[in-house]
Amino acid sequence: MTRDDALALDAEDPLAALREQFALPDGLIYLDGNSLGVLPRSTAARVQQVVTEEWGQGLIGSWNAAGWMQLPQRVGDKIATLVGAAPGELVVADSTSVNLFKVLSAALQMQQADAPQRRVIVSERSNFPTDLYIAESLARQFGCTLRLVNSPQEIAAALNADTALLMLTQVNYRTGHLHDMADLSAAAHAAGALAVWDLAHSAGALPVQLNADGADFAVGCGYKYLNGGPGAPAFVWVRPTHVSRFRQPLSGWIGHAAPFAFTPGYQPAEGITRYLCGTPSVTATAALECGVDTLLAALPLGGMAALRAKSLALTRLFTSLAETRCAGHGLTLASPRDDARRGSQVCLARDDGAYAIVQALIARGVVGDFRAGDAADGLPDILRFGVTPLYTRFVDVWDAVEHLRQVLVSGEWQQSRFNQRSAVT
Amino acid sequence: MTRDDALALDAEDPLAALREQFALPDGLIYLDGNSLGVLPRSTAARVQQVVTEEWGQGLIGSWNAAGWMQLPQRVGDKIATLVGAAPGELVVADSTSVNLFKVLSAALQMQQADAPQRRVIVSERSNFPTDLYIAESLARQFGCTLRLVNSPQEIAAALNADTALLMLTQVNYRTGHLHDMADLSAAAHAAGALAVWDLAHSAGALPVQLNADGADFAVGCGYKYLNGGPGAPAFVWVRPTHVSRFRQPLSGWIGHAAPFAFTPGYQPAEGITRYLCGTPSVTATAALECGVDTLLAALPLGGMAALRAKSLALTRLFTSLAETRCAGHGLTLASPRDDARRGSQVCLARDDGAYAIVQALIARGVVGDFRAGDAADGLPDILRFGVTPLYTRFVDVWDAVEHLRQVLVSGEWQQSRFNQRSAVT
Repeated sequence: MTRDDALALDAEDPLAALREQFALPDGLIYLDGNSLGVLPRSTAARVQQVVTEEWGQGLIGSWNAAGWMQLPQRVGDKIATLVGAAPGELVVADSTSVNLFKVLSAALQMQQADAPQRRVIVSERSNFPTDLYIAESLARQFGCTLRLVNSPQEIAAALNADTALLMLTQVNYRTGHLHDMADLSAAAHAAGALAVWDLAHSAGALPVQLNADGADFAVGCGYKYLNGGPGAPAFVWVRPTHVSRFRQPLSGWIGHAAPFAFTPGYQPAEGITRYLCGTPSVTATAALECGVDTLLAALPLGGMAALRAKSLALTRLFTSLAETRCAGHGLTLASPRDDARRGSQVCLARDDGAYAIVQALIARGVVGDFRAGDAADGLPDILRFGVTPLYTRFVDVWDAVEHLRQVLVSGEWQQSRFNQRSAVT
Repeated sequence: MTRDDALALDAEDPLAALREQFALPDGLIYLDGNSLGVLPRSTAARVQQVVTEEWGQGLIGSWNAAGWMQLPQRVGDKIATLVGAAPGELVVADSTSVNLFKVLSAALQMQQADAPQRRVIVSERSNFPTDLYIAESLARQFGCTLRLVNSPQEIAAALNADTALLMLTQVNYRTGHLHDMADLSAAAHAAGALAVWDLAHSAGALPVQLNADGADFAVGCGYKYLNGGPGAPAFVWVRPTHVSRFRQPLSGWIGHAAPFAFTPGYQPAEGITRYLCGTPSVTATAALECGVDTLLAALPLGGMAALRAKSLALTRLFTSLAETRCAGHGLTLASPRDDARRGSQVCLARDDGAYAIVQALIARGVVGDFRAGDAADGLPDILRFGVTPLYTRFVDVWDAVEHLRQVLVSGEWQQSRFNQRSAVT
């Protein structure tokens, strides 16, 4: 595989034109869309319209005239098409953490009503920490415990008559392991538990089938593969058979059945609207819509299935190039080799220097990120490279691995400037 | 008082130039800044910079390089100067409803630890509904009850040995009644209760002294008098002696002591940072900062005290003109006549037609709003006119009342088109 071969793959890529939707910095190879997606070209003008026209000129009247009141549902319906949900089942709101609080609380109320002896939440020790923190808070409130397993293989065996919930991020943020939503939801149900899924690293990255695969509750992130911008609002979905059974505790006025009746008693709206809480962030939700639209643009070209096929081709190429061209430099593959179990990222482990190598790559214009290991848990330090099939090219992968090879061969990563830690890595 | 007199007041107003900070629609008299503040001239360019430069070019690196990580604290420190709090005591986060959930939960935990027999939350029946809804949810969780009083005069007498919390919006959204924060906080403390304040209609509208006036917890809104834009992030403050005693339940990663250590156990940050939850909305927080800066621009001109003096002059003028020039048309004053008890709005009650009169005024370019009454609770329908001393002129007040007079005299409000209700009123 030569660089020209990679260029040839780009030349014949039927999705190549989708990259034109983005305002990418010149010369940058951005492999961190799993942390913060890139800016769509349409966003700046749309945000400007919201600010100067809808807010500046329309003022309070824009809640009706510009459709602001329906934004959480309208953008939610668009996201629903990407994750196997139906219109009216999903809304945009708050942050992923806040939405996870809502769904975990509702799910625990369900089990309290249906099977009160079930008091264990099962998850992965390497799940994204905010998910574990929110679960820890609710476990305390509901008198439950959190049981963390160390590998995907241990999950099914951990489900038993004590299990209330199985809570997983569909694609593990550290390892890129893609859980089988259908199998694990079925295993949870077979054990009498409910399945709560965080789609942070899967929504917009690969086909998700919430309804078909048996999920009970789901949340997801707006600023990774949905390209909604830094701190974009998140989303929340609840299986229709559950959604109106319980109240979520963040009972703000926008989730009320009649928010503008201004009545003192809380009466939750029917359906997913009850998962809204306070006044929605209009500018941020409008920006998120632009990001979601970049994915909808792929629908005529095969949609999420076509994007997934390209994502797998990109991560296969990255893995194969890294293993051949960077052999002998202490890197080991930490993401799954099996296509069916790999998300849209490649993770490489190294005993030492992973942080500095990532920094040296960034200095060369190749942006991946570093995730610290945990010796106590047997987790290695990780170099993480996310591919985003909407805009990552095969030649980007080729060039990124070549830079990695040069960084390793030259030893330039050992310069002290690459070891200075900053607040966010 | 003639229109020329009003123009003369504007000509000699030392705060008049502050209006230049805003991009107001031509010819509009906007008296709804207590619902959605107007657009500062600086916001569009700043938002564009965040979108195209910081996000578009800086991408993930902007969390450090553009100071995104510190935005909640940086803008929080600015708001602190407006509400009598010290730097480091206040952060921008989430929505008012979500922040109220956090502080009520912490306050109830405090009472559970210190005085578990106290199980009543006292508030006003006409408090903004979302505050009551959130309190209702937490009352259920903590085994408490919500006791709602019908008038400000009943509050002190409602505080007793059962009271856990007094929860009030400092300025009542319906009536414009300004509670005495010092007196009522002292009354709460004398009864052994904690005082929780919502500053939605006071932060940026009048001087607030959270520390000096004995508040225990406070939340506030970014999109009213702080001019942060539709659905802007809100803020949260906790008295320093309380802040690290308890965890708030929305234990997201940004409130963790070391968010980027990615450890599985939640360890809350010290101080107000533990009141953060998920990833902050960068664009929305940057827009809020522009709004807050329009208030900080008043500091050399006397700050909140000078703005308050102008606000009172404006509401006095509105009240006096409405009572003289609109006499005989069935309007009664529903906001306090006493300057010391009036927020930054004038409320007029009418037995019928209030909705249509507001619509007829909007058609003339005078934007106030309507708040429905509740016959069961003896609350009348309200025409609400908010003044914002940063940009409302004396002549705006004169013209608004003249339009109101013409609408009443002509009977034009009785046209059927003014009675068609829309989703948001």
